[in-house]
Amino acid sequence: MSEFDLIAALLEELGDEARSADTILGPGDDCAITRVPDGHELVSSIDTLVADVHFPATAAAELIGFRALCVSFSDVAAMGGRAAFATIAVTLPDENEAWLRGFARGVARASSRFGCAVIGGNLARGPLNISVSAHGYVPAGKALRRTGAAPGERVCVGGILGLGAAALDREDLTSVSLGTILELEANDARYPLRRYYAPEPDFALAARLSTVASAAIDLSDGLLADLGHVCEASGVGARVDLDEVPCHASLDRALAGGDDYLLCFALPAESLERLRADFPSVTAIGEFTAETGIRDGGGALLDNAAGFDHFQDR
Amino acid sequence: MSEFDLIAALLEELGDEARSADTILGPGDDCAITRVPDGHELVSSIDTLVADVHFPATAAAELIGFRALCVSFSDVAAMGGRAAFATIAVTLPDENEAWLRGFARGVARASSRFGCAVIGGNLARGPLNISVSAHGYVPAGKALRRTGAAPGERVCVGGILGLGAAALDREDLTSVSLGTILELEANDARYPLRRYYAPEPDFALAARLSTVASAAIDLSDGLLADLGHVCEASGVGARVDLDEVPCHASLDRALAGGDDYLLCFALPAESLERLRADFPSVTAIGEFTAETGIRDGGGALLDNAAGFDHFQDR
Repeated sequence: MSEFDLIAALLEELGDEARSADTILGPGDDCAITRVPDGHELVSSIDTLVADVHFPATAAAELIGFRALCVSFSDVAAMGGRAAFATIAVTLPDENEAWLRGFARGVARASSRFGCAVIGGNLARGPLNISVSAHGYVPAGKALRRTGAAPGERVCVGGILGLGAAALDREDLTSVSLGTILELEANDARYPLRRYYAPEPDFALAARLSTVASAAIDLSDGLLADLGHVCEASGVGARVDLDEVPCHASLDRALAGGDDYLLCFALPAESLERLRADFPSVTAIGEFTAETGIRDGGGALLDNAAGFDHFQDR
Repeated sequence: MSEFDLIAALLEELGDEARSADTILGPGDDCAITRVPDGHELVSSIDTLVADVHFPATAAAELIGFRALCVSFSDVAAMGGRAAFATIAVTLPDENEAWLRGFARGVARASSRFGCAVIGGNLARGPLNISVSAHGYVPAGKALRRTGAAPGERVCVGGILGLGAAALDREDLTSVSLGTILELEANDARYPLRRYYAPEPDFALAARLSTVASAAIDLSDGLLADLGHVCEASGVGARVDLDEVPCHASLDRALAGGDDYLLCFALPAESLERLRADFPSVTAIGEFTAETGIRDGGGALLDNAAGFDHFQDR
């Protein structure tokens, strides 16, 4: 089977997900062509998922494809954007058509759920590695940056932390299927698997935040590390009431576990009640402070170097 | 040295090349933000370069960075676009700051030569692997596709073929520096090294072609394979006068060697003289035909399956 046959198989699985209303030309040429809607700016990010670092290499290919799209578009949500399109580069050790078809089905399922087009890609032979270039649209001037958090604003998170990291301890991490995990409800003991493989970006919350929040980030490396990035970029500190942190089982995993892919943002206090009425998953866990550093409710400094760092031993 | 220190080192080397006039926000946030100029569309492509497949792993890091940007933006030129911006994902086995700084210098040198901004990236630990998401702008409706070549139009190429592939046979392939190769002139025996490591996209020709050519592709896998893609997409065939193919040393390498990253395009015959007056590197090597297949001047079918295929033994 040739590279071109494999690409044809990929595109077959991708189906209609290769195009959207803003796609002028989808996969198959030297480049894809898109238009950015009037009055909008483009937000762009690239993420790489390395086998056995960012996903278990033996997991179902559908899960790997679904997760790859989710974690990459999490950055688009963190800018207050909506999903627009992706290009995906896959490096694969051998011509495994079944794996590629499964991967493409996972990608297609995710892209149909959050409305992006997979307009192009690249396939090469080498150690298993997936890079996703994710793009979104934001109304001009409305993108949420990491800068902008001000003292007195509330520190908020968009859901329960520590679930993604909890999945890594489960024995069924590599034996579940995409169909199964997408049906898991929050009260199911296996729910962490859903948050790990399908951390679907909350684009509804992101759109609302672009009108009310002052700064935002997505939680990929653990709350303390990522909140630390917002504090550093904004030139502020934060007080976190540890009792208020919505966490699954372990506070440690919520603070430093990573793999949450939820939104963390700065919100003027007066906006909290209305936002929570529409988005009950939002929790205020503290407030930004003029004094730098992240402290607990008693004023003790919390160690924010504990998040995931690819080039640091943990 | 942490991931964040390494990224800071990368950005230091990148300097002003992280931004352009269309960049609203460069590296450092969840996404970069750009605006597409009025009346333009966005063309997007992603390419992966795997160590010891797409470049010698032991080559100078500057050369690898320069080449990565060139081959990725070659696709933008093939659409008739101008370089706009890139995001780059690097997977690296260890925290090699010197290598990363060299890589970033090579990237910066290329981006400054063809005027794109490197607005973001990703750094992870794993087998050496580089993915470049390359983007360009084209006036709305003017992008050159692979479809559109019509019988009677001339088959043209934008330079001398076979040079990139010739470099692979040279013993000094992994001992040259970026500074040296960028000064090599066409009459230098080492010139193939320049074409291999620095196949700079011809954006001037690309811009002109978007107004006169009917179809285009960049030559990455060899003339016969890539011209075959244009023929297939356009539903035509081609006759190639082998005596007219501008080639370095070996016709075989010109036809099937790959690594040329020159433009190949369909041109109405009446436009050839004027185009050649402005772009003397352009050569007409045959014409598109209603009969499918690629044939030589005598009508014999040429084997177009000889180009590079990642999943086919050669």
